[in-house]
Amino acid sequence: MQNIKMTISYDGTNYCGWQRQNNAMTVQQRVEEACTKIFGKASFVTGASRTDTGVHALGQVATLQTDTTIPIDRIPYALNAALPEDIVVRLAEAVDLEFHPRYGAKQKTYQYKIINARFPIPQWRNYAEFNRRPLDLQKMQEAAQYFVGTHDFKAFSATGGSVKTTVRTILALSVEKQGQMIILTVTGTGFLYNMVRIITGTLTDVGLGKISPEEIPRIIKSKDRIQAGQTAPPQGLTLLSIEY
Amino acid sequence: MQNIKMTISYDGTNYCGWQRQNNAMTVQQRVEEACTKIFGKASFVTGASRTDTGVHALGQVATLQTDTTIPIDRIPYALNAALPEDIVVRLAEAVDLEFHPRYGAKQKTYQYKIINARFPIPQWRNYAEFNRRPLDLQKMQEAAQYFVGTHDFKAFSATGGSVKTTVRTILALSVEKQGQMIILTVTGTGFLYNMVRIITGTLTDVGLGKISPEEIPRIIKSKDRIQAGQTAPPQGLTLLSIEY
Repeated sequence: MQNIKMTISYDGTNYCGWQRQNNAMTVQQRVEEACTKIFGKASFVTGASRTDTGVHALGQVATLQTDTTIPIDRIPYALNAALPEDIVVRLAEAVDLEFHPRYGAKQKTYQYKIINARFPIPQWRNYAEFNRRPLDLQKMQEAAQYFVGTHDFKAFSATGGSVKTTVRTILALSVEKQGQMIILTVTGTGFLYNMVRIITGTLTDVGLGKISPEEIPRIIKSKDRIQAGQTAPPQGLTLLSIEY
Repeated sequence: MQNIKMTISYDGTNYCGWQRQNNAMTVQQRVEEACTKIFGKASFVTGASRTDTGVHALGQVATLQTDTTIPIDRIPYALNAALPEDIVVRLAEAVDLEFHPRYGAKQKTYQYKIINARFPIPQWRNYAEFNRRPLDLQKMQEAAQYFVGTHDFKAFSATGGSVKTTVRTILALSVEKQGQMIILTVTGTGFLYNMVRIITGTLTDVGLGKISPEEIPRIIKSKDRIQAGQTAPPQGLTLLSIEY
């Protein structure tokens, strides 16, 4: 029996997120269907990150236990032939049986895109948030630095999560502008549910002048979800990579 | 009666091109439906460029004659409220009644995107061609320069066109790489049917080493469609802008 680590890209537009559900199509189900077809027996995969409906991935990671004789470097091609074109397996690697994609993750990087212009760009409607009000890039960059470090991010977590601790470490958070697009890139050792989208919504409020950059430490310390900004919409978010 | 020049962006994925057809949904039909709804009487628009099925636009131009009393700067907002989210009117301007979007165009700029990597990127499947074979960027850049100038581009035109002359002028043609994406940007005084896509297919053959850059002048002179490369697929093409 081999443990296969797969790196997977997908366009989340047409899926109800990663995780298998009874009554809705998900990326995990499509990947399992392809594995079942290619490996000839019922297959179940374990994903690293439960991305939400409409959220995208360049480097989701999932594992599969299989006794296939297909050479490992051919597995992406075999699976891609059985997958719809909005899901692509980019890499398959043999890993220890003990390797777990979620518990073994050392850091994850997400990207959030905002089109900041008078009018939306139709080609980006499923891949970026649109905001017609001018955002102050420099203020957003100033505010971003206050998130870096180890903090209790309870104020930046959707309610209802059942995690042991809401302390997380953000290693880097950058805000850049490319043409009409503002791009947030955040790397951390782990993230709470909706944390990147709530940080984005809060930085958007900073960009609009509703919150000053210096207020961020107070909002973090409050541990109060109401003090932070809104949850930015899912389509702007992409899981870029996971490091082990 | 006013002549309104509209600048329009669209995602061409779900349309059978710009131009109205009897049995297929087109961008022109959607724009005319929105105009009819907003201006209260049957509306017909004239477009500058007949983009094909799956081709996108950032800056298509179309005109509409109307006696509306809606202030001109409000027209984009009114039309966008009546348009699907894959079509956006970015600008409305009053122009002379003699202004014609096709005959008055002085130059047009198109962009063609190619993902050149081992595996496709699902988010780009409708906005770029995918080519897994490595393309030699420098050779493509060398070859691009031979297209610049006034030439008979008959070899780079789909057969069946009924134009008076196949002589056109290309003002600039650049080939750049951004990460895994190769971007061709071409500006000309006018283009033959499928000309940008055939030039792209020919530059792709150069990138693959099938054609050397120095062969481009001979291919142009041959006026023989067979000598040029294949027509690159539509989804990689975007009409960027039209100058008057």
